[in-house]
Amino acid sequence: MDVPSLQVKSSKHTYPIIVRPGCRTSLYDYLVQYLDGASRYFLITDDQVASLYLEEIESSFPNSEKIKSYILPSGEQSKSMNQYEKAITAALEFKLDRKSVIIAVGGGVVGDLGGFVASTYMRGIRYVQVPTTLLAHDSSVGGKVGINHPLGKNMIGSFHPPSLVLYDPECLLSLPPKEWRSGFAEVIKHGFIADREFLKWLTEEISSFDQVDMALLTEMLIRSIKVKAKIVQEDEQESGIRAFLNFGHTLGHAIEGEMGYGKLTHGEAVAIGMKFALRLSERYFQTKLDYEPYLSVMEKLGYELDIPHNLNVEQLIHRMKLDKKSYNQVINFVLLEQIGKATLVEIKEEILIDELTGKVG
Amino acid sequence: MDVPSLQVKSSKHTYPIIVRPGCRTSLYDYLVQYLDGASRYFLITDDQVASLYLEEIESSFPNSEKIKSYILPSGEQSKSMNQYEKAITAALEFKLDRKSVIIAVGGGVVGDLGGFVASTYMRGIRYVQVPTTLLAHDSSVGGKVGINHPLGKNMIGSFHPPSLVLYDPECLLSLPPKEWRSGFAEVIKHGFIADREFLKWLTEEISSFDQVDMALLTEMLIRSIKVKAKIVQEDEQESGIRAFLNFGHTLGHAIEGEMGYGKLTHGEAVAIGMKFALRLSERYFQTKLDYEPYLSVMEKLGYELDIPHNLNVEQLIHRMKLDKKSYNQVINFVLLEQIGKATLVEIKEEILIDELTGKVG
Ligand SMILES: NC(=O)c1ccc[n+]([C@@H]2O[C@H](COP(=O)([O-])OP(=O)(O)OC[C@H]3O[C@@H](n4cnc5c(N)ncnc54)[C@H](O)[C@@H]3O)[C@@H](O)[C@H]2O)c1
Ligand SMILES: NC(=O)c1ccc[n+]([C@@H]2O[C@H](COP(=O)([O-])OP(=O)(O)OC[C@H]3O[C@@H](n4cnc5c(N)ncnc54)[C@H](O)[C@@H]3O)[C@@H](O)[C@H]2O)c1
Repeated sequence: MDVPSLQVKSSKHTYPIIVRPGCRTSLYDYLVQYLDGASRYFLITDDQVASLYLEEIESSFPNSEKIKSYILPSGEQSKSMNQYEKAITAALEFKLDRKSVIIAVGGGVVGDLGGFVASTYMRGIRYVQVPTTLLAHDSSVGGKVGINHPLGKNMIGSFHPPSLVLYDPECLLSLPPKEWRSGFAEVIKHGFIADREFLKWLTEEISSFDQVDMALLTEMLIRSIKVKAKIVQEDEQESGIRAFLNFGHTLGHAIEGEMGYGKLTHGEAVAIGMKFALRLSERYFQTKLDYEPYLSVMEKLGYELDIPHNLNVEQLIHRMKLDKKSYNQVINFVLLEQIGKATLVEIKEEILIDELTGKVG
Repeated sequence: MDVPSLQVKSSKHTYPIIVRPGCRTSLYDYLVQYLDGASRYFLITDDQVASLYLEEIESSFPNSEKIKSYILPSGEQSKSMNQYEKAITAALEFKLDRKSVIIAVGGGVVGDLGGFVASTYMRGIRYVQVPTTLLAHDSSVGGKVGINHPLGKNMIGSFHPPSLVLYDPECLLSLPPKEWRSGFAEVIKHGFIADREFLKWLTEEISSFDQVDMALLTEMLIRSIKVKAKIVQEDEQESGIRAFLNFGHTLGHAIEGEMGYGKLTHGEAVAIGMKFALRLSERYFQTKLDYEPYLSVMEKLGYELDIPHNLNVEQLIHRMKLDKKSYNQVINFVLLEQIGKATLVEIKEEILIDELTGKVG
């Protein structure tokens, strides 16, 4: 059958990533090819994805007794303790055992929750990521899984690499523009932190999210995933360079949290955080980064890059101190020394207050 | 300071185990010696342990702002999703970060829950096991952590090795006889599955739980932990021989579940399961194991080794199928080929029904 688009080495095993238009309709064949002796499959998805793709996927299974689908309400709210517990209960009722496999079909919400269920079900079983959003090209690779807590996003979770990532770019055609923007922010981020050439290519090739060419889209996904895969291979547990993937996320998460999860998409918040981090980078390194051309492409694509006016500076700072990169109440930021070269630095609270004030209420 | 009693190699790091009478009163000094740069400590314990030892332990800390104690209700019921969530919330409120350390002071309940909190807090932070029960000489080593689900014990959890195990055998002096029995079952189990000499030594030296000599107790703990440590080092993730540690547990867990967690202690249920597994071993391997002398010592120590009469055979079998060693509804049992030599075998349902019937309701 297919040769994987790439392979990712994790501390536990090496897993293939397959990016291939149309692969959803023969999902079962891929499972058989890439996973040994799965006793049962528990497919987790959300209601929107289910209405679009579940029938096609389920009908690729020859034996419907071996698969059970579990449908979450769509949206960030489902990455909760409550939904986590319910999914575990359903998995136990379906009698998943240690040789069973969870299949997460959906965006980052389904992938993060489904992966967390897999990582803690009977102390960890295998799972497959089947990303259906653009953002999930990022979230499905690297093994970070988890759920939110009212006191902070992704505060509960673990590292549990998938056993296979199966990505059908055709699924992206049903995404609304807001979701394209959400995912494309992470694509751009991969350019900013590690691959200037890719960033240039992107801003030349992608000027709209309508009628994206399937071959171009596939190429973009593979190149972007490559950046992510290279970083997580080098530093799976985020003791060093993996933190670079949080470029734009420190403020982005704080904004998401302050506005209430789900008001802005993840990527829309990250885009605001990237602009902020670019400006902070210039100040910190006393340099010019010439990032304006990239930002203007982003604006053309519909991104709103300024911090929403109704937010409170102190609250944002409070949230940033809770960020997982912060220790002892000190805020760490991913900044760029150059376009394509990230680094992690400690930023004084006064500087953040200064940079945020005026931009925020 | 102290030389560790032993070291355990895990896939993530090697951790020291220190078994030393009186060590609780200088707990902080050990943390400083063995853990690098801990930003804060979050101590999890239960109300009974707190009333006995918390003051002594807390007063070993020079700076009370760096430590926060969190007290669970004592008992198996605390190994629940609800208590897990509450503990995570308290940890977030105390602003634990990725360099913080959780200290689990108590029996297996506190250790399993505290370890699971550590394994999933911000995708995993360090923790220290400070066992205070005899049973916890077993549960504190090997990195299995987790909580219960109404549909099964320990169904939710992960593998997360502690960074240090600090064991003060003096704490055992306040244990009621029931808890001695609970833990001693695992000590005996270690003999049964891997160390016939140790089993003999045990049954010669320990004839009562009153006035146990501290040196003898320390020796017993170290020898028993050694069996456990050797097995988990060879097979951390339970893909093979680690399953041997479940000797007596397949039926034991089912009995615990059927009676409602907490009616029998874990070890009391395991003791019943061991007798059952010994008999099943003789039948399966067509051999005599001459285990009667060991069982009679156990009876002298107060163990009730027969299956409680009010239990239902079908329900027990249903529970055993949910056991984590079972795949595809097939029940696997740890049996002994000889005393000191365990193996995992598939047991037909008819044989189980036959063995259970007559012994149960
Ligand atoms: N684990 C990681 O490394 C990582 C990295 C980045 C982000 N994340 C997480 O990912 C989440 C966001 O992911 P997301 O943006 O994919 O959100 P999502 O999963 O909520 O999907 C966005 C929306 O699109 C819908 N949808 C999904 N596929 C569709 C399709 N093909 N056509 C039409 N609609 C579709 C969903 O139902 C949902 O309403 C956040 O929780 C974030 O924390 C995780
Ligand atoms: N993680 C593992 O590998 C593993 C292995 C075996 C068992 N376990 C788990 O361990 C749990 C049982 O552990 P346990 O038997 O220690 O139960 P426990 O933690 O409930 O302790 C038993 C009772 O003794 C009290 N207690 C604790 N220390 C005391 C002391 N020094 N003096 C007086 N009273 C004290 C406790 O408050 C509790 O009421 C079960 O949940 C079981 O699943 C885990």
